[in-house]
Amino acid sequence: MQRATSEKRLLTLDHSSGLARTGVLNLPHGPVRTPVFMPVGTQGSVKTIRGADLLEYGFELVLANTYHLYLRPGVRAIESVGGLHDFMGWPRGVLTDSGGFQIWSLARLRKSSDEGYSFQSHVDGSSHLLTPEKVVELQRAFGSDIAMVLDECLEQPSSRERTERSLDRTLGWARRSKAMGPSSGQALFGIVQGGTFPDLRKRAAKELCEMGFDGYAMGGLSVGEERYSTVRAVASSIEVLPETSPRYLMGVGKPDDLVDYVSMGVDMFDCVVPTRNARGGSFFVPGGHVNITNARFALDPRPVQDGCDCYACRNHSRAYLRHLFLAGEWLGPILATLHNLRYYARLMESIRKAIDRDAYHEFRQCWHETRESFDSETY
Amino acid sequence: MQRATSEKRLLTLDHSSGLARTGVLNLPHGPVRTPVFMPVGTQGSVKTIRGADLLEYGFELVLANTYHLYLRPGVRAIESVGGLHDFMGWPRGVLTDSGGFQIWSLARLRKSSDEGYSFQSHVDGSSHLLTPEKVVELQRAFGSDIAMVLDECLEQPSSRERTERSLDRTLGWARRSKAMGPSSGQALFGIVQGGTFPDLRKRAAKELCEMGFDGYAMGGLSVGEERYSTVRAVASSIEVLPETSPRYLMGVGKPDDLVDYVSMGVDMFDCVVPTRNARGGSFFVPGGHVNITNARFALDPRPVQDGCDCYACRNHSRAYLRHLFLAGEWLGPILATLHNLRYYARLMESIRKAIDRDAYHEFRQCWHETRESFDSETY
Repeated sequence: MQRATSEKRLLTLDHSSGLARTGVLNLPHGPVRTPVFMPVGTQGSVKTIRGADLLEYGFELVLANTYHLYLRPGVRAIESVGGLHDFMGWPRGVLTDSGGFQIWSLARLRKSSDEGYSFQSHVDGSSHLLTPEKVVELQRAFGSDIAMVLDECLEQPSSRERTERSLDRTLGWARRSKAMGPSSGQALFGIVQGGTFPDLRKRAAKELCEMGFDGYAMGGLSVGEERYSTVRAVASSIEVLPETSPRYLMGVGKPDDLVDYVSMGVDMFDCVVPTRNARGGSFFVPGGHVNITNARFALDPRPVQDGCDCYACRNHSRAYLRHLFLAGEWLGPILATLHNLRYYARLMESIRKAIDRDAYHEFRQCWHETRESFDSETY
Repeated sequence: MQRATSEKRLLTLDHSSGLARTGVLNLPHGPVRTPVFMPVGTQGSVKTIRGADLLEYGFELVLANTYHLYLRPGVRAIESVGGLHDFMGWPRGVLTDSGGFQIWSLARLRKSSDEGYSFQSHVDGSSHLLTPEKVVELQRAFGSDIAMVLDECLEQPSSRERTERSLDRTLGWARRSKAMGPSSGQALFGIVQGGTFPDLRKRAAKELCEMGFDGYAMGGLSVGEERYSTVRAVASSIEVLPETSPRYLMGVGKPDDLVDYVSMGVDMFDCVVPTRNARGGSFFVPGGHVNITNARFALDPRPVQDGCDCYACRNHSRAYLRHLFLAGEWLGPILATLHNLRYYARLMESIRKAIDRDAYHEFRQCWHETRESFDSETY
């Protein structure tokens, strides 16, 4: 009973259109409209831009990473400034990822056991042990609005047997995380693993629901597997997850992915694509993306996207943006990041509006038509 | 007579305090209060920040470089967007340096003759000839508010004979630049050279005044020579320059330099120090500067400078700024640049206020006392 109440409190569902739904995450640092895209601020900063930009562009929730922040600057530095929000100078929501994926992909001499992850820091080679309990404690010290349990990641493809063994460990870690008891004001999300095996995904979702988390993430996806495998894994998980809890698809995605997975009932996303691609000169535009360093933009006085209200499009031409990238000026990646994040924010606004007027199917159809007729060579 | 009128129009003198003076440069893109510090936007961008930041922080005039912009993106790209202001997305004043110093310090196989500078581009190795006439034409195409004549630079120390020979060439180039005739709405400044020889500086100033420019710069200084030599060269030049014309000390300087040279009657400055030092983690503070990567800032929740209204000081702690630099986050240099530029803008405001109330001597005394009692180890 208590669980149902706490779930209700975290997510207020609003409208639905097919399986897609809008709602509000009620977090200590203010309400967050869903479906939501979280810009990635791994080390406590969304690369190249300021908190004021994120606020202005409509973001209400950002992601930071426990593994990174634990290693540098360390929990003491963050506590000395009064927690992660004050440390980052960011007044709205923060979700901290547990760092399972980052230990797996970045740390040296990584060794996973039932106890947790032992590894050497990629920053200075120092030795560490992160247990599920320690990871929850760290996130409590950070004071993030949403904490994630530690999970074990797995290279893809992996055999069913190996995936099942890893899933058992991940579920054991989740159970221990949950056993830490509730933390006032911080939600705790479980993470559904199970590779590309639909029945393992279902089993994972079912067991996590029995433990009773405030929300449920789907992890270990979009890491190189075929798209239909991802879709099937997401569908299998959502089938089991409670309707009233937020569903978070980790590390996803490109604009197409957001449009598609929202239609399956996903509420939350994070991805480095808008920011990382920006730093390479790639600007998202309706229907696709263009690389601004292309020679045909050299004398082009138009903004990257007509009608876009981002700082770059309001103030600068394609010719200037191209020049900044070719000249290696810092401002190029900065302006591209502003544009791409605003593009994502507007996309999420459009998605929510389409759901609210129960026209999500039409919205998605129109999206893919625009996508198919897009030609980056003539944009 | 015509000259005197045009000079009056460009600079309206306001108050004076000793030799220091306040005034207003009346430029096509709006009035500029002097003494003025110009942030350096060599390639058409003040590194790491946006035009909106410069406007917000009180800057009215920025510097761009003809040599760099001529090589990349080239005059056609700038014209295609409607000139340098629209290209940069910057609505206020732009002064373009001629590029004499940059050809001298950056270009390959540089060869100076009476005709001009022949050289190979540092960008792509292509061969170029820049004559005094071509440099004026380029700046007219750019549409900058203030253009600079091409001058020859000289390594320091150089013999009197070599300096005199070089000065003759620079004066010849200035005469040819002036002979191009007036350009509507664009001021043209002569550049006083003459190394560290006071009599050569005086001769240069005198001859340039006879040619009749809209303003006068002092070049080839602060390039490694002893400080008393710089001071003497500036004093010798100013002695000859007309009181009614703007005086611009090129490439200077640190905060101390601004305070000192204003007291000698200099009106305009530019320097990479606030922006370049920022990217290395150095923040200017009252009395000196601190490097934010210092270990003692690791747990320091205070802003870099109490009472500073820059974005960094309003939103972030020393601990966070240090973390950004150590973690290699883009936001570190961005926030440091904002701080240092706001520091410079506030310094120039204080300087102008002190002159306006005829208390510049006291202001400068107080400045140097604060400077002497500053201890970066305990700040």
